[in-house]
Amino acid sequence: MEEIDTLLSASWVLPIIPRRKIFENYSVAIDNGIIIDLLPTKKALKKYQANTSLNLNNQVLMPGLINAHTHASMNLFRSLADDLPLLDWLQNYIWPVEKKFINADTVKAGVQLAMAEMIRGGTTYFNDMYFFPLDAAEVIIKTGMRATGSLVLMNVPTKWAKNEKDYLKKIKTVYKQHPNSDLINWILMPHAPFTCSDESLREIKRLSDELNLTVHSHAHETLNDIALDVKKYHCRPLERFFRADLLNDKLSLAHVVHLTQYEMHLLKDNNVNVIHCPESNMKLGNGIANMARLAKMGINVALGTDGAASNNDLDMFGEMRSAALIAKGVTQNPTVFSDFEVLEMATINGAKAVGLENVIGSIEKGKSADIIAVDLSHYFTQPIYNPASLLVYAANRLQVSHVWVKGNLLLQEEKFKTLDIEKVLADVNQYAIKIKKFAQIPRVHRV
Amino acid sequence: MEEIDTLLSASWVLPIIPRRKIFENYSVAIDNGIIIDLLPTKKALKKYQANTSLNLNNQVLMPGLINAHTHASMNLFRSLADDLPLLDWLQNYIWPVEKKFINADTVKAGVQLAMAEMIRGGTTYFNDMYFFPLDAAEVIIKTGMRATGSLVLMNVPTKWAKNEKDYLKKIKTVYKQHPNSDLINWILMPHAPFTCSDESLREIKRLSDELNLTVHSHAHETLNDIALDVKKYHCRPLERFFRADLLNDKLSLAHVVHLTQYEMHLLKDNNVNVIHCPESNMKLGNGIANMARLAKMGINVALGTDGAASNNDLDMFGEMRSAALIAKGVTQNPTVFSDFEVLEMATINGAKAVGLENVIGSIEKGKSADIIAVDLSHYFTQPIYNPASLLVYAANRLQVSHVWVKGNLLLQEEKFKTLDIEKVLADVNQYAIKIKKFAQIPRVHRV
Repeated sequence: MEEIDTLLSASWVLPIIPRRKIFENYSVAIDNGIIIDLLPTKKALKKYQANTSLNLNNQVLMPGLINAHTHASMNLFRSLADDLPLLDWLQNYIWPVEKKFINADTVKAGVQLAMAEMIRGGTTYFNDMYFFPLDAAEVIIKTGMRATGSLVLMNVPTKWAKNEKDYLKKIKTVYKQHPNSDLINWILMPHAPFTCSDESLREIKRLSDELNLTVHSHAHETLNDIALDVKKYHCRPLERFFRADLLNDKLSLAHVVHLTQYEMHLLKDNNVNVIHCPESNMKLGNGIANMARLAKMGINVALGTDGAASNNDLDMFGEMRSAALIAKGVTQNPTVFSDFEVLEMATINGAKAVGLENVIGSIEKGKSADIIAVDLSHYFTQPIYNPASLLVYAANRLQVSHVWVKGNLLLQEEKFKTLDIEKVLADVNQYAIKIKKFAQIPRVHRV
Repeated sequence: MEEIDTLLSASWVLPIIPRRKIFENYSVAIDNGIIIDLLPTKKALKKYQANTSLNLNNQVLMPGLINAHTHASMNLFRSLADDLPLLDWLQNYIWPVEKKFINADTVKAGVQLAMAEMIRGGTTYFNDMYFFPLDAAEVIIKTGMRATGSLVLMNVPTKWAKNEKDYLKKIKTVYKQHPNSDLINWILMPHAPFTCSDESLREIKRLSDELNLTVHSHAHETLNDIALDVKKYHCRPLERFFRADLLNDKLSLAHVVHLTQYEMHLLKDNNVNVIHCPESNMKLGNGIANMARLAKMGINVALGTDGAASNNDLDMFGEMRSAALIAKGVTQNPTVFSDFEVLEMATINGAKAVGLENVIGSIEKGKSADIIAVDLSHYFTQPIYNPASLLVYAANRLQVSHVWVKGNLLLQEEKFKTLDIEKVLADVNQYAIKIKKFAQIPRVHRV
């Protein structure tokens, strides 16, 4: 018998790799935070002596979900302003409250609320773009979650930085000071072409090469942001990334709602990763990206919720479902974006997009034990004919029963192990009271 | 002090009528199953002496949700077959299992599973189209839910009836034998134009006039069903309803995904109700109905989940969210289908569609106390700036804490009061085991 830390035995294991398989009555062996084996439970019980053994008879084990595009702290602004045109929403509601309220403390409070929501719903990694990343990293490491450290750059002044030069300075300082933890994956984040100069984009490219960092940005989210670049630079945003030599497999672009045929091939030919944010794109009225087409071309499509101020949740189960349904609706083809396909988008494709393909995204030997258990015994997912279909089309994120990152439990039997949710809510509401007083909340009619 | 049965005092009441209002710190007074008052809690505590008083400090009270199109028993077949073209799905999976397994007992089991799911998610009425309606009515009345009694007619043989003549006979027998309960609202249900002859449609019209019953059908769900009518009858399905004189405010039509301009006006001019089933329409690849346009024309648009074999859940919160997001995405206009609009679709508009506008669908004096409480204290819906927005865009159906129909509690603090869920699941799984053996479940790969 081999001594190991943990043996998880479940009714089903959906490892993602090998592709489109569901193993029945299988076990995952974990030692030192690493998956060391995946084998039938009968064999596992003979082979391994585990310090902790869990029998998950109602559960399916799968890799933790990867939220490949979000702004976690914006949970502070959830449902502050909805059903509004994008510019009205940004200029009259979001930017004013961000300007007044975003600082190291509110970022920490917002990230913690977002992490509670994400852990509860089976997300183990979030690709976060926001400000005060060292402060965010502090609470992320403390919670034991895995996330992007946001090396953000834009021309919009915030309390974090006042201009592009200042943002670049901050990027370099932050990267120098970054804590020694593999939970934080530092990514260069030029906010969007229309908020970054050509010089900044070139400097991002230089830093990406020098520090070997991946790059993440918004692109072609709205017709308006494309028009802004066309007006100012006489070309479309992707062309500006191309000129800055940023189009390669280290780049991931969120949204890409509006693309020409040529641009689709530009993404494909340069192995650029794209992040589908179907709910945010719809809710803000930006449109519906034809992601089934991009996926069919062989482009790596990952999935993100965007921030809670626009979505208004960080529910990757909901996002998988939306991605699958919308693709079928738009193409009038029910076979596109099958259950297994969107499960891959929410796991291994996300891992690829953030440069962690060898670390997370599947239950494979040698990968980190970033794993979730989903309880299918709830009547929402009964009867059970097809676990993969139930996960995508019927499961409620509250059916996530356990969450591990690096083999450490973050959620057990629906309870947080590393977050004090009462404290998190108290912190958030202390700021929310002030935000509510300051902001004009639209269309709430009181008597 | 006036003596009454129940006083519900909540942080927020969203009555639906008056429109687009949220009352803070309000109470609903209930006597004999009827809403007798809606007033500030301070006043209510002085005016009423209630046998049961509930303080719902974290909750919003709103009318029970109305699922305006479903096939409840099909919960038995949830996730049996997905990601398939419609005809493959129907002919190779759904029809064979229906033919073999649908009978009075399986219908009862399936309806009970569906009711558990619906009650848990705040649905108090479901517009059910299926077979063995007296058996379904038996368990619905026992559970205390409110639903349609399905007077179904079609040319597809089932264990319920063998041809249209037989279905018509069954309609008359069932209606004669129907139990004396106002929980069941009997509705004539010609399945769809392509499954009903012109003679049958005319007989439905006659019965509708004679018995004063509303009529419900599928229509223009797929391009294929339209083509079938064009081929056989040399006109499109709506035209056949028109010729049978069925187009009026007593008719509700599910789906209507594919409509010409002329057909939209035909619906509007004849005050026909339409039932939007966005998730089912997308999942089966039928397309996306432009419901924002129909609603803007003044057509009454209600909301339905369709059956769990195609959706794959009966989640009206999810359906509200999908309806809102898709409308914004398709029209590229974030102001269409606002939070309040979809809340109306899921309540009062549904009540109108099933002919119960004066009984349910809003928290108004004189209406039945079909009410739900949704707990917003969960971190999924924090902070609270706008309860209506949170209900549509962020709330999880498991945040429904209480459900009343006619003032009777069906769900209290998340526990069923009238359903034995363990018994329901045992019944369902007894049949599911047999169904699983019989059906070829597609694409489940086992090792």
